Amino acid sequence: LKGEARAATLAGVAQKDASPYELYYWPGIPGRGEFVRLVFEDAGVPYVDVGRVPEAEGGGVPAILRLLAGERAGPLPFAPPCLVVGDLVLWQTAHICHWLGRRFGLAPQDEGGQLAALALQLTVADLVGEVHDTHHPIAGSLYYEDQLEEAARRARLFREERLPRFLSYFEQTLERNEAGAGRVLVGAGVTHVDLAAFQVLEGLEYAFPHACARLAAQIPRLRALRERVAARPRLAAYLASERRLPFGESGIFRRYPELDPA
Amino acid sequence: LKGEARAATLAGVAQKDASPYELYYWPGIPGRGEFVRLVFEDAGVPYVDVGRVPEAEGGGVPAILRLLAGERAGPLPFAPPCLVVGDLVLWQTAHICHWLGRRFGLAPQDEGGQLAALALQLTVADLVGEVHDTHHPIAGSLYYEDQLEEAARRARLFREERLPRFLSYFEQTLERNEAGAGRVLVGAGVTHVDLAAFQVLEGLEYAFPHACARLAAQIPRLRALRERVAARPRLAAYLASERRLPFGESGIFRRYPELDPA
Repeated sequence: LKGEARAATLAGVAQKDASPYELYYWPGIPGRGEFVRLVFEDAGVPYVDVGRVPEAEGGGVPAILRLLAGERAGPLPFAPPCLVVGDLVLWQTAHICHWLGRRFGLAPQDEGGQLAALALQLTVADLVGEVHDTHHPIAGSLYYEDQLEEAARRARLFREERLPRFLSYFEQTLERNEAGAGRVLVGAGVTHVDLAAFQVLEGLEYAFPHACARLAAQIPRLRALRERVAARPRLAAYLASERRLPFGESGIFRRYPELDPA
Repeated sequence: LKGEARAATLAGVAQKDASPYELYYWPGIPGRGEFVRLVFEDAGVPYVDVGRVPEAEGGGVPAILRLLAGERAGPLPFAPPCLVVGDLVLWQTAHICHWLGRRFGLAPQDEGGQLAALALQLTVADLVGEVHDTHHPIAGSLYYEDQLEEAARRARLFREERLPRFLSYFEQTLERNEAGAGRVLVGAGVTHVDLAAFQVLEGLEYAFPHACARLAAQIPRLRALRERVAARPRLAAYLASERRLPFGESGIFRRYPELDPA
């Protein structure tokens, strides 16, 4: 993207030529791209949300498809979200969040903490993948309506086994993190991992309100973390803005009542 | 593990107290642990394969379960494979391979190459996850026999859509990598990503011989990469040794003829 095409959705305000950071993600859904957006927004660093730049200005879905088709020199990304920063290109959500988190002071400074942060962020990504597969257990290329029975079966086991497993794991991780006094997942300060935990809890409560309500009493630290992250000034402003996309019926987190019975 | 407990399966020969690297992975299957083993074996760096150390010497499954139960101070790993090196603990296969690869000279030296290497390794991990889900599309906690119909349906879409998509992507990545003259996936020399590509091709040919045969003509560079990796002296010795575990009926890669019709 060049020149006018940078009239993008930026952190705080729309600006032109304000940032070298180009995020490529499907417009219209929070999806996996939202984990990356939260790092930019919390850091207050402007970024170009290419998928949401008008096509006439070089953005939109065609710009994403050109990147995936390999028109750019260098490594070929496999799937969005992708991040382009000058000559660098990254893909894989957790990897992008970790790299940005280190740049923006949203990561531990010691090696052990950084290693744990990436591992935790990848564990969040695994949970996100399992959420996706509750409504698409057979194939992402099929409609949900074409895999209803399988989805019902997978979602039940997700609610009963996997969701408690993941949430209790993160709760335990908070509890064990003495450096953070149980308030952050790794190290002493807020990191990209805490932002990701916030987002996955937001999505889970949207998609599985009943299952989450049943587990709420078991994850007090995680719920408090979510509240604290949401109250961080820059994030609170973002969450109240039009830049924050709502969950819907075509992303990772979907509210299908039949997959989350009362 | 201490003292006698280090009488482990080490790169090259069994040695005691020969390595600070402790790999925690379920014994008896290559699984995701094999991607980590290949980095050690190719680098010629001794490691303790804790799951294969006798229980009487502090190893085996009980040692893995103790690590996952949090008996060790520091970050709590979510699932094997896990790597413990002194005070450091890592989990998530791709993360471990990337970290070891950088230590052992099996990673690009420039930032762009390192970023691509981790992204590629994570893309291999995604493929591995999709292979797993061909035989366990509903839940890992159920037997394959309890999800036969769903597995047949998912496996068909994996063979027809996802497998060609992943393999053609890696073929294209090889083709585009001018620094490596099309012989390695990223940078100029062999990296942990090439070892992972080798292993996933080994597993795919075991699990889906017919589907792989149909795609073979479309991935000449990838097939040549696999041959070159297998011929690397230390890896060739490892692959011929008893340390190399065969694929079977209880790992990621399983040969169920009904999931790969001729």
